[in-house]
Order: sequence, then structure tokens, then C-alpha cells
Amino acid sequence: MGLVVQKFGGTSVANVEKIKNVAQKAIREKEAGNDVIVVLSAMAGETNRLIDLAQSAAENPDEREYDSLISTGEQVTISLLSIVLNAMGYRARSFLGFQVKILTDKAYKKARISMIDTDVIAHELKKGSIVVVAGFQGVDEENNITTLGRGGSDTSAVALAAALNAERCDIFTDVDGVYTTDPNICSRARRLDRVSYDEMLEMAMTGAKVLQPRSVEMAKKYDVPVYVKSTFSDEGGTLVTKEDAEMEREVLSGVTYDRDQAKITVVHIPDKPGIAATLFTPLSERNISVDMIIQNVSLQGYTDLTFTVSKKDMKEAQKIVEATAREIGAKKVEVDDDVAKVSVIGVGMISHPGVAAKMFKTLADEGINIQMISTSEIKISCVIQRKYTELAVMVLHDAFHLERKS
Amino acid sequence: MGLVVQKFGGTSVANVEKIKNVAQKAIREKEAGNDVIVVLSAMAGETNRLIDLAQSAAENPDEREYDSLISTGEQVTISLLSIVLNAMGYRARSFLGFQVKILTDKAYKKARISMIDTDVIAHELKKGSIVVVAGFQGVDEENNITTLGRGGSDTSAVALAAALNAERCDIFTDVDGVYTTDPNICSRARRLDRVSYDEMLEMAMTGAKVLQPRSVEMAKKYDVPVYVKSTFSDEGGTLVTKEDAEMEREVLSGVTYDRDQAKITVVHIPDKPGIAATLFTPLSERNISVDMIIQNVSLQGYTDLTFTVSKKDMKEAQKIVEATAREIGAKKVEVDDDVAKVSVIGVGMISHPGVAAKMFKTLADEGINIQMISTSEIKISCVIQRKYTELAVMVLHDAFHLERKS
Repeated sequence: MGLVVQKFGGTSVANVEKIKNVAQKAIREKEAGNDVIVVLSAMAGETNRLIDLAQSAAENPDEREYDSLISTGEQVTISLLSIVLNAMGYRARSFLGFQVKILTDKAYKKARISMIDTDVIAHELKKGSIVVVAGFQGVDEENNITTLGRGGSDTSAVALAAALNAERCDIFTDVDGVYTTDPNICSRARRLDRVSYDEMLEMAMTGAKVLQPRSVEMAKKYDVPVYVKSTFSDEGGTLVTKEDAEMEREVLSGVTYDRDQAKITVVHIPDKPGIAATLFTPLSERNISVDMIIQNVSLQGYTDLTFTVSKKDMKEAQKIVEATAREIGAKKVEVDDDVAKVSVIGVGMISHPGVAAKMFKTLADEGINIQMISTSEIKISCVIQRKYTELAVMVLHDAFHLERKS
Repeated sequence: MGLVVQKFGGTSVANVEKIKNVAQKAIREKEAGNDVIVVLSAMAGETNRLIDLAQSAAENPDEREYDSLISTGEQVTISLLSIVLNAMGYRARSFLGFQVKILTDKAYKKARISMIDTDVIAHELKKGSIVVVAGFQGVDEENNITTLGRGGSDTSAVALAAALNAERCDIFTDVDGVYTTDPNICSRARRLDRVSYDEMLEMAMTGAKVLQPRSVEMAKKYDVPVYVKSTFSDEGGTLVTKEDAEMEREVLSGVTYDRDQAKITVVHIPDKPGIAATLFTPLSERNISVDMIIQNVSLQGYTDLTFTVSKKDMKEAQKIVEATAREIGAKKVEVDDDVAKVSVIGVGMISHPGVAAKMFKTLADEGINIQMISTSEIKISCVIQRKYTELAVMVLHDAFHLERKS
């Protein structure tokens, strides 16, 4: 007898038939004696349709208006689910960001939740309602509608679970859990029963699309157990939770890849203090996020600096960096989007030395050249040529025996 | 230098190209030195699409959720127009019902505006913004989204014009004004330069679709001059305003028709006090509005009672009335939807006797049988067989010489 938050993505609410299936899942939880909050995304494809409309109205749509436009998709699905639930004899009420209210900062298109008022929802739950909340949206202090960025509904769900002290947060999606790698690439991929917040975060940051990274951060911060489950099957599921002894026994929990990468190299820069700041400040001012950064040791007063950005930002980043390069007297700027990032992740690597060496050797044995390396305590990422992505994923998965539990 | 409210219907905002045309109209008013509020409907067809979605989710959709669902169409158009205006270099901001706020009662699907908070809009106008407001929607005191019924955006526009003391309210639509009758039926139909609130109200109530009746009532109450204009041409236009001497010189201002009528007759009712109340209370409880009612004088303690309802309500009304008829001992209930209502309207008829007689004779000369008659001070309506609708409209238009100004 507790509170359960269920979140369903776009493919789970793609039409009225599928919304009726979602209603069944909510009812099952309710009949089991739990209070239920359902968080929904827009119908699959709807947010993209709205983005296309905005883009056809203006090249750079006003951000306040853009957010108000693209937040309508969730309003449609939450109303429809509530209509279905009421028709099935269950009291249900939908709530938009302003009705809850879900307060955010003013950063349109990528707002952060600052506060959730729990009164209205708590009141409805007490009345026995199934509460249906629009994902992806909030309002700022002046009642302007804001959105939380791609995959923001995951964050809405975890934030509501945290604010209302839910027993757990179920993220329903079109796959039945988190895998050791993409099963479409590697048939020996294995579903993980459990994965730690930190590993999940690294996986999400390095290419796994199953959860929005910010939702994982929030789940960790407030210690919300998150279950990743399939909407279309009752089997399987992965629990994202605190680290435990079992997880540490495993060397690695997954191999991820990200083909949305472009590499930019600034060649032969006069090595003076402040070079990196001079290069990267204009990029961050244009909201271009830089992923990996590598600066070689200076040779005879000159250095090279390489970094990666998202493919869609490459052209703009190149223009900005070329201007800066001229100013600071660098020789030239080279760009390359024929790259991909492959990463191995696992809390176990802290206590199992030699993971990096094994990774590099495995790639070398296949003749795959490593162009850039970046590491964290529980992750090693390598940038390689794009065409080797699938091969690299498969040989790494095999080399670390991820197909079997250790 | 005043405040102008412009309202554009669904065909005027049917796609981004048309929304750009709307932007031009708003900018022209702004450049003329006026403050501008634009009120929009949803894209043509969008509200119907949303209604179909609701109906596929449940036969009788929960009304709170239904209103939340169908109010999304206006959110899309106001954001898009604001995006376009901002891209053209004009500061513009869109506002939903809750953001304004437009307070209504709790009657979902046909809410009435009780109060408009003018602070936010006045503040934005002072900053030089073009203010773009969602028509058709408001919120009740608990922040539930409500809608104002079909054509409700007209009412939103007039209510905003009244609340903010606008100089005038321009209703842009796909015709260039109010005509003496439907030009599709009668080629001699003439556009009226001016028409009184009362005449416009009767026209709207008897079948003219150009304005929602409630918006005309409100314009009259707060004395808001309303211009009906074409979105697609600068010619023409009709001013809806207070009665003046010129209007009274004209005998009639228009002929209207309504084919959305069904006739129900309760035959041979024992004539006792309270019969009408017994019959009509259950109908009003089911939200079925009754239009014309005729009760013949009692003959030997029995009477017949005939009334009309909207076609879509006929089946349900028949079921309800048959049950009541059994209770009160009536002989039978007859229904007929092969009918139409034809009306003539004009403030002049108060001072020009003989309008009714002329109407009846004109119809009789064509062999058109009159089944029911109802009158007001400035209107006479006749129910006739449906197939005579166009003929009746044409001969009445000719008989009263509506093609020329008197």
C-alpha cells in the first residue's frame, strides 16, 4: 500500500487503443491497493510535428512561444487517458504543469524543476483519484509554460515520485529493461536485473537512450527506485537503484555507443594560459555543449586541442571556432563527423584494474584505431572511426563476457 | 490611437501561410498607432479532430477532460502567430485562459465568462507587445480548463474588448460581412453596412452562422462596436452597433434559415395545469434545448403540444418525451425532422405593420404550408417542410425587396 508513479512514453500512447492499454496498467496498480500517479509523454511523432510547425513559422522560433506550442502534445494524451479511465468507472483527473503546479526556472526548452507543489495531487489521491500528469512541462514564476528538454517526461515522473515520497517510479517503454548493450547490434546482449544510479547515468550520457540523464541524477539524489519496464509485456524489467555488493562483483555492466558525434581539432595553437577558456566560452554562449576535450602536451610552445560536439552543432561550432582560431593565431581547424564514441561502464572497474588496457587491446586486435580517450571512475570512452561502431560494440561485449552474470 | 481587438476564425489560421497573413493584419493595426489584441480560434478542422479523439476514447467523455483536450487547438495557433510576429521584429506574447486570466463558471463545454483580469494584458500592451490570446477557453476558480461552446472565440474577443475598453472589436472571417441572406441561396443577397445588436442576435439565433449569439449579447451589454470583416479582402465589412434612425427606416434587415431542426408533437394530452413543466423539465435536465413551442387551445379537455429541438437531440428527446407522455396519459408522440425554420428579422417591423401577413401570403402563394409560427418584436419564424427552404428564402427576400436599400 504505497504510492506508485508510472511513466509512459510516446510509443505507449501513440493512439487511443494504446492509451486504453495504459489505462489497464494504471488500474491494475490501483486495484492492488496503491495510490497511482501516471505521467505521460505526447503521442509518438506529435512533438516532432509541432517542432516542424514552429520551424515553418520561423527559423529561430521565440523560445517562450516554442515551449507553449510543443507542450500541447502531453495535454492531449493526459486528457484522453483520463477520459478512458473515467469511462471505465475509475475517478481520474489530468493535471498540467500550471495546475499541479510544477515550478521551473526560466530556461525555455531545457528548464529545470525547482519545486513541485504537492497539495493538489495529494488532495486528489485522498479522494481516490488516479492522477494523470503531463510530462515534459512546467511553469516559471510568471506562469510562462516551460519544457524540460528531450526525454523530459522521465524527469517529471522521477521528480513527482521524489516530491510525493513514492514507493517507486515505473518507467514504461518499448523495451523490457536496460541491456548490457543494444540488442539490435549484439544478439548476446543481456538484460540487467539491477543497475546502479551512477552506471545508469554514465550509460545514458554515453548513448543509451532508455532514460533521460537528468532523471537518473534526480533519482539518485532523492533515492527513488526506478523500474524500467515494457509497456507491452509483463516480463523482465530493470531496477535502477543504489549500488550494492552484487553490482560491485561484476566488472562491467554495459557497452554503449553514440554516433551523434563530431570531432573538431584546432591545430598548432600558441600555448598560452587561457587558451581553452577563449575557445570554449563562445561555444557555451551559443548553447553548444562540448563532450570530450583533449589537449596534448605543448611542443615547442605550440599545442593541438581536440573536442567533440553533437553532429547537429558541428557547422555552427566550426564557424565559431574558426573565428577564435584566427584571433589566437592557431594554424587551422579540422572537422570530422565520420566518428563514433564507444564506452564501457561499470562500478566494478574501480576494484578491477586492467579494464582500460583490455579495452584498448581488444580494439587494437581488430585494427580499430583509437582517436580520443576519456575516462571517469566507472567509464572509459574511445572515439573511433564511425564504420567500426558495431564491430567495436560486439568485440567489447564478448571480451568482457557481458553475456553472462559473473 | 486606441485599443483594437482582432479575432480570426479557423479558416483564417488553417496553416502557417495563413497565420503569416494574420500577422500582417495585426502589424498594420499596430503600425497605425493602435494597441492590438489578437484572439484566435484553432486551425480549421483541428477542434473536430480532437472531438473525434475524445469520442473514440469514450461514448460520453468526462467533461472536465474533454474541455482540457479540445482547448489545445488554440494553444497551437496563438503560439505560432507569436512566433511569426517575433520573427518579423514585433514583440508578441501569447496568453492562455489561465495566464490572462479569463475566469469562467464551472459549466464545462458551455462555460460563461465571469471575470477577466486585465492586469497581465495591460502590462504587456504598455511594453508595446502585440498580445495574442487563446479564444474559446477560460479557467474556473480551481484552475480547471473550461471552454465556451461552439463559436466561443467570438465571445472571448468581445469580452476582452469590453474588459479592456477597446475602441472596437474586428471579427475576421471567410465572408466580408453580414448579408441580408445567404448569398449561396439567393444571389441578390446584399451586404449590410450596419446592423443593430438586436437584429444580429435574432439572425444568429435563427441560423446565420457569422457570429456566436452570446458574443452579440455581450457586445450589446457593454456597447462594443463589432466589425465583421473578411480575412482575405480589405473590401466590405458590416458594423454591428446600436440601433439608429437609418436602421429603423428599413423594414427588414435579413432572411435566415435553419435546417438543423426536428419537430416533436405530443398528441391528445389530458389538459391539466403543469403539463408543460412535466414535459420540458426532463429535457432541460438532459441539456436538450427546446426552440419553438406551440400549444393549441384545449378541445374537450385535450390538447396537442408541438416543439422543435436540434436534429442531433431528436432521438434522445423522443425517448424522454415518450416516457413522459405515457405518464401523463397522452395518446402518442410524433417526430419529424423533414422540417426547416425560415425567419425574417428587422427592427423596422415594429413601426411597419403587416410584415407577418406579407410573409404568410408570400409563402402561401408558393404553396408552402406553414407548420409552426413564432414571433418576437423584431422577428417572425415559420417552420416549413425542409425541401422548400431555398424557395422560401428567395421569395421572402424578393417580396421584401432586401436587394435594395430603402
